[in-house]
Amino acid sequence: MSDNAFALKGLFVDTPEIGALRTREGYLVCKDGVVAGFYDTLPDCFSGIEVTDCGDALVIPGMSDLHLHASQYSYCGTAMDLELLDWLDNYTYPEEGRYADPAHAKAYYEIFTRDLLHTATTRAAIFATIHTDATLELMRQLSKAGMGAYVGKLNMDRNCPDYYSEHTPENGEAETRRWLECCREAGFARVHPILTPRFTPSVTDAYMERIGKLAAEFGVPMQSHLSENRSEIEWVKALCPDTENYAETYARFGLFGGDCRTIMAHCIYCPEEEDRMMKEGGVFIAHCPTSNENVIAGIAPAARYLRQGYEIGLGSDVAGGHTLDLFAVMASAVQVSKLRWRYVDQSEKPLTMAEAFYMATAGGGRFFGKVGLFEPGYRFDVVVVDDGKNRNLRTFTPGERIERCAYLGGAAITAKYVDGCRIL
Amino acid sequence: MSDNAFALKGLFVDTPEIGALRTREGYLVCKDGVVAGFYDTLPDCFSGIEVTDCGDALVIPGMSDLHLHASQYSYCGTAMDLELLDWLDNYTYPEEGRYADPAHAKAYYEIFTRDLLHTATTRAAIFATIHTDATLELMRQLSKAGMGAYVGKLNMDRNCPDYYSEHTPENGEAETRRWLECCREAGFARVHPILTPRFTPSVTDAYMERIGKLAAEFGVPMQSHLSENRSEIEWVKALCPDTENYAETYARFGLFGGDCRTIMAHCIYCPEEEDRMMKEGGVFIAHCPTSNENVIAGIAPAARYLRQGYEIGLGSDVAGGHTLDLFAVMASAVQVSKLRWRYVDQSEKPLTMAEAFYMATAGGGRFFGKVGLFEPGYRFDVVVVDDGKNRNLRTFTPGERIERCAYLGGAAITAKYVDGCRIL
Repeated sequence: MSDNAFALKGLFVDTPEIGALRTREGYLVCKDGVVAGFYDTLPDCFSGIEVTDCGDALVIPGMSDLHLHASQYSYCGTAMDLELLDWLDNYTYPEEGRYADPAHAKAYYEIFTRDLLHTATTRAAIFATIHTDATLELMRQLSKAGMGAYVGKLNMDRNCPDYYSEHTPENGEAETRRWLECCREAGFARVHPILTPRFTPSVTDAYMERIGKLAAEFGVPMQSHLSENRSEIEWVKALCPDTENYAETYARFGLFGGDCRTIMAHCIYCPEEEDRMMKEGGVFIAHCPTSNENVIAGIAPAARYLRQGYEIGLGSDVAGGHTLDLFAVMASAVQVSKLRWRYVDQSEKPLTMAEAFYMATAGGGRFFGKVGLFEPGYRFDVVVVDDGKNRNLRTFTPGERIERCAYLGGAAITAKYVDGCRIL
Repeated sequence: MSDNAFALKGLFVDTPEIGALRTREGYLVCKDGVVAGFYDTLPDCFSGIEVTDCGDALVIPGMSDLHLHASQYSYCGTAMDLELLDWLDNYTYPEEGRYADPAHAKAYYEIFTRDLLHTATTRAAIFATIHTDATLELMRQLSKAGMGAYVGKLNMDRNCPDYYSEHTPENGEAETRRWLECCREAGFARVHPILTPRFTPSVTDAYMERIGKLAAEFGVPMQSHLSENRSEIEWVKALCPDTENYAETYARFGLFGGDCRTIMAHCIYCPEEEDRMMKEGGVFIAHCPTSNENVIAGIAPAARYLRQGYEIGLGSDVAGGHTLDLFAVMASAVQVSKLRWRYVDQSEKPLTMAEAFYMATAGGGRFFGKVGLFEPGYRFDVVVVDDGKNRNLRTFTPGERIERCAYLGGAAITAKYVDGCRIL
């Protein structure tokens, strides 16, 4: 019975309950790509299966990055002093435009994929560019690397430079359809398409409507940005005068949760009605604390979202965010929530590290199915973390070790499994 | 003429003016421990001196860390979810108390010294503990490693646990005098004593008065904390009802700038009169953005201090701060100043990375003398930074490379000179 089974032996940390780490020593058994069970000692029915001893490493669920721009990775951590519009005009759009060149896309996405592979992230929801072929190239590379991902070819037909636009809804729809059909044909393992209107200011109503229809026709989810800063919200109001709020600019075309699984990045300044729509539609909030700080967007009420039962995970939001490392994003989530408590709202206590860890693993993992916990039936997405560099004469609890991985960095990912396949 | 001279060849970045990076390729010549000059090509008078080629590494001035607690390093990056008082009672005081044991001090300070040596920091102002022997041990180790430092045996005689107190002003003065005399006798190279009343709540007026007299008698500088949070300020007011402000609790005993060179950590909530006293006395502000965020103190008006001509540098404030790496502290300084702009004060634009780099090098360096610039007569404190890990197919400017060292981490310090001596 153990043909497709194996086990890891070690110290396992996950968060079945929000706000508390669960720490167990023993055996995590994988069968057919999913968790068969956790055992203090290996049961007889699994005798003889291969057991890999992880020693004193930390073994954690693979992390899910709910928001990042692969095409911005090359300049990650630069130009952070620029105003947002200068940053878009001088860095973002010119760089994204270069992905029209297949050679550029291939070379730069190779770097991105390699670096992502060496983080604790096992699954991600990724923005590519408007270019179908480059997007397919990224999907091919991620799939080849064994990563789990939703990847989006961007939709943009307004308020963007001429060299980086799909120009008309018709053209955009045709190209998006071609892309979705190519994806269907390619059947990338673990890598799927996700419709990606960049954000309302970049997409005409006519195009958004067609995207909504494509989502229904192809049964694919969608991702975009929501209420990141106040001037953006004003802009959306001016562009879509017949909507009550930003969320409605997506929702009226069937692109806001419900049947269309949805990720919305940021959600810093949502009015009450938007909150209600997110909760009702089961919309996933991608909380991106590093990016929100870097582009001076503000601090999202992530602690409230999490504690009130919204779907929420973390996003690195490279390259508004400066790092792919979700451990670092966890630390940032805790830190900015402290400043939010200090300066914005003392009714909501700051996030704890256990809550941040939940968001990075179980919280974001829910978008991908049964992902992010060491429970029977969950995908066997596992990361082995060697934090030896962070250890000293002192004895640290597993929780303290997680915390030091977040604050100090320096943890090495020594093994990584997705669906039970070892990919690192 | 070139007996004590050598040169580094490479790409040099420093900040002779606040807010702008200066980038030069050429030769930096060291003679007798100080910068003799910078040259595009090596002049005849230096022909034949040893030249080390730094290749395409970044060569920057050694950084000065104006505030950190060496005795808290072992648990750096843990317990960040605790309230400040719980953190002090459960982590800080018990750990600092252990330095009564010379074996503990030796072992833990070895780890601290080794790790500090591998950062970009060349000089630091350090809090030890109340223990004379442990403090001397730390000074000996730092001196042996070649680092430049001011190190303080702490003064504490109130509001601290019985096991970690000097109990009376008489006892505290006697021990502090013994320590200062031992320092004089030992004559540690580049490592000097600095008087360190922990902060006003830990030191009775009677003891503070004696510390002021010791500062004058021995001609040593002082360091402490100032206006870190509002409840601390209220507490100080209650403890010292006859003072106008927190600064005066030090100043009335000659411990606030002027003849007594002074570093004050934090300075987040200084009233106008305190600001005036700091500027007039040339008091150095240790801006500690990581710590101020972690312990939920707030965000100091560092951009205003810097642009209005206050003396200001950066402090890692380990272990309120979670990292010794001043590159990371630079990024944090920029990031929190953006949130300050967003939520506290839109009259002062956020810090730029060039300004943060200035604070980490030239700004903090001024406390140590002519330190932190590649100008003739300055101490030859130089750090060679291999940022190869952060490079990719894209071409980065030197400024972008500095920025990526700050945001991404991952730079390796491959050589380090203090006073022209290679220490790494």
